[in-house]
Amino acid sequence: MPYQRPNHGGDLTWAAQVAGCAPPDLLDFSASISPLGPPATAIAAIQSGLSDIARYPNPSYGTLKAALAEHHQVPAEWIAVGNGAAELLTWAGRDLASRAATFLITPAFGDYGRSLRAFDADIIPCPLSLGVTELQPTAWLGCIKAQTGDLDLSQCGLLLNTPHNPTGFLIPEDVITQWLTQFGLVVIDEAFMDFLPPARQTSLIHRVADCANLVIIRSLTKFYSLPGLRLGYAIAQPERLQRWQQWRDPWPVNTLAATAAVACLADQDYQQSSWQWLNEARPSLIKALNALPGLQALPGQANYLLIHTTKSAMALQQYLLQRHQIFIRDCMSFAELGDRYFRIAVRTPAENQRLVSALTIDRG
Amino acid sequence: MPYQRPNHGGDLTWAAQVAGCAPPDLLDFSASISPLGPPATAIAAIQSGLSDIARYPNPSYGTLKAALAEHHQVPAEWIAVGNGAAELLTWAGRDLASRAATFLITPAFGDYGRSLRAFDADIIPCPLSLGVTELQPTAWLGCIKAQTGDLDLSQCGLLLNTPHNPTGFLIPEDVITQWLTQFGLVVIDEAFMDFLPPARQTSLIHRVADCANLVIIRSLTKFYSLPGLRLGYAIAQPERLQRWQQWRDPWPVNTLAATAAVACLADQDYQQSSWQWLNEARPSLIKALNALPGLQALPGQANYLLIHTTKSAMALQQYLLQRHQIFIRDCMSFAELGDRYFRIAVRTPAENQRLVSALTIDRG
Repeated sequence: MPYQRPNHGGDLTWAAQVAGCAPPDLLDFSASISPLGPPATAIAAIQSGLSDIARYPNPSYGTLKAALAEHHQVPAEWIAVGNGAAELLTWAGRDLASRAATFLITPAFGDYGRSLRAFDADIIPCPLSLGVTELQPTAWLGCIKAQTGDLDLSQCGLLLNTPHNPTGFLIPEDVITQWLTQFGLVVIDEAFMDFLPPARQTSLIHRVADCANLVIIRSLTKFYSLPGLRLGYAIAQPERLQRWQQWRDPWPVNTLAATAAVACLADQDYQQSSWQWLNEARPSLIKALNALPGLQALPGQANYLLIHTTKSAMALQQYLLQRHQIFIRDCMSFAELGDRYFRIAVRTPAENQRLVSALTIDRG
Repeated sequence: MPYQRPNHGGDLTWAAQVAGCAPPDLLDFSASISPLGPPATAIAAIQSGLSDIARYPNPSYGTLKAALAEHHQVPAEWIAVGNGAAELLTWAGRDLASRAATFLITPAFGDYGRSLRAFDADIIPCPLSLGVTELQPTAWLGCIKAQTGDLDLSQCGLLLNTPHNPTGFLIPEDVITQWLTQFGLVVIDEAFMDFLPPARQTSLIHRVADCANLVIIRSLTKFYSLPGLRLGYAIAQPERLQRWQQWRDPWPVNTLAATAAVACLADQDYQQSSWQWLNEARPSLIKALNALPGLQALPGQANYLLIHTTKSAMALQQYLLQRHQIFIRDCMSFAELGDRYFRIAVRTPAENQRLVSALTIDRG
């Protein structure tokens, strides 16, 4: 039986079937994961932690929380660890759903809709008007304002991500600050913030101390290339996290993920290598793509790029799979984007070159 | 700061502090986990699966579900995999909470209350009257009947486990059959069923085909000694599982747990060794304990035993920790049991002998 085209855009099994190869033989530009692979320190930590799988994780996750607390310079009580950021999004969705309505900037990561619908949230989509340039503060503020009507925002929630997915745009901090004064609850997914070098990160974690209405969600599995392990965390004031904890099972993070995470956070060499790689690879890739007729890369700040295409993105995806075993992310699951956009991860310079060459031949 | 006595009974960090040793140096009778340790086949599968952690799990979990489907001879569509049985209990709790009320046989595993309260379920506790002998069908049926009043059971849910925790008693199948005809939803946690040899297992999985109101929850991490990895699953008719799926994130099971699980299910040598171990170790341990004055083991069928004690169980727990670095499970979190019961896992014959010797000296 042929494997159905999946709803989620990054299904390797489906893609490999179209490409006629095994999933590991695909060159995967669809998942926005670091191409550097897991840190050797994390693998070593997993190896030496194998004997711990015969014991339950300690529900306090004290060692892991202490490492995260030190990393972000916040109290450990402000941290909840989860089975990937997606598990924590579920509980953010429940919290948001208790509000009169939740504003959602679109296009948006598909799992936001799932987590909000799971608890019957009233979702108010706020479409961004996308060109191929960075958005100005007025554009961000305007997309919310246009949908506000006579709603009392202090009774409403707001769910967003920065860097925004799929554009890669950073939302200016003064824009978010304005929303923090307006909305009753603001959940910011910063799953890709780690990819920016520290001097250019615009995390809102430092606002948690004075904003009881703020939740930050982070992931360790994208930057450290460990999505199979599942590890995310939330940072918020402790009263809210204690309420979430009553909803969740006591052991959400497996012991190997907890051990690997502590090793990752300590691995400054890996972090430096990642920032150096992306600092060189992304501008080169943008330049090469924009030199191709019919393609235009949006100037995102993250480890992925949204590309506007004058031809069908789905046809291009199929061509790249069948001819080059290269898998790009179509944007059909982002209803606002459809067939004129695709998203790619930034990968190593050699891999990026393979993609550009394949696109050049197609377009040539 | 001294570590507070935890709410959950099995906190190794607390116990090690009382014992004055490192957690791995405790002889842990508190967690009802196989003492045989993880199968070598599972460890090998994890080792060879390490390269997969750089990829997301496939949300369909096709390989894992196929292995479980073959193991239980059910269609793969009847299976949902989860981040431990506890994660699936969360969604069972949500499903049960939508009913007029949920009947809960007590004493009950503490996380049942958490999952039901998380969704504001109306919980009707149904206390078992415990002696030191196996319960008759009339006792099981009676504990529900006594709380029924004028409630329409077809609008209510029932949450139970067999083998029952903490007694280890099996609930007779004809008793559960009667409840299946009465209740609108019956969730049966069979987390410890694997410990019984196949001929003595009384799983209700074979009833899922004709009972749309039945959910079975199973765990792979107790029998295969992998609680740190987190892996559970639910078996029910597909319409219900599809509804649960809308509530959950797409990647609940990490790739290493999925890989290890497939290896475990295929490891018939490990399964045989486990049944053989328990078949010998449990009767010997019961006999030795019952020979001690003031102690009486209930005749449970699982890999743990509930012990009635004429002296304080908390005092005994403290004595065993401080003098012998042995950790038994007090029953303070089971409100109905209190300080006159404790629970122990059945461990290897040599470890069981250490416990019996320590108890003999205390009692002598």
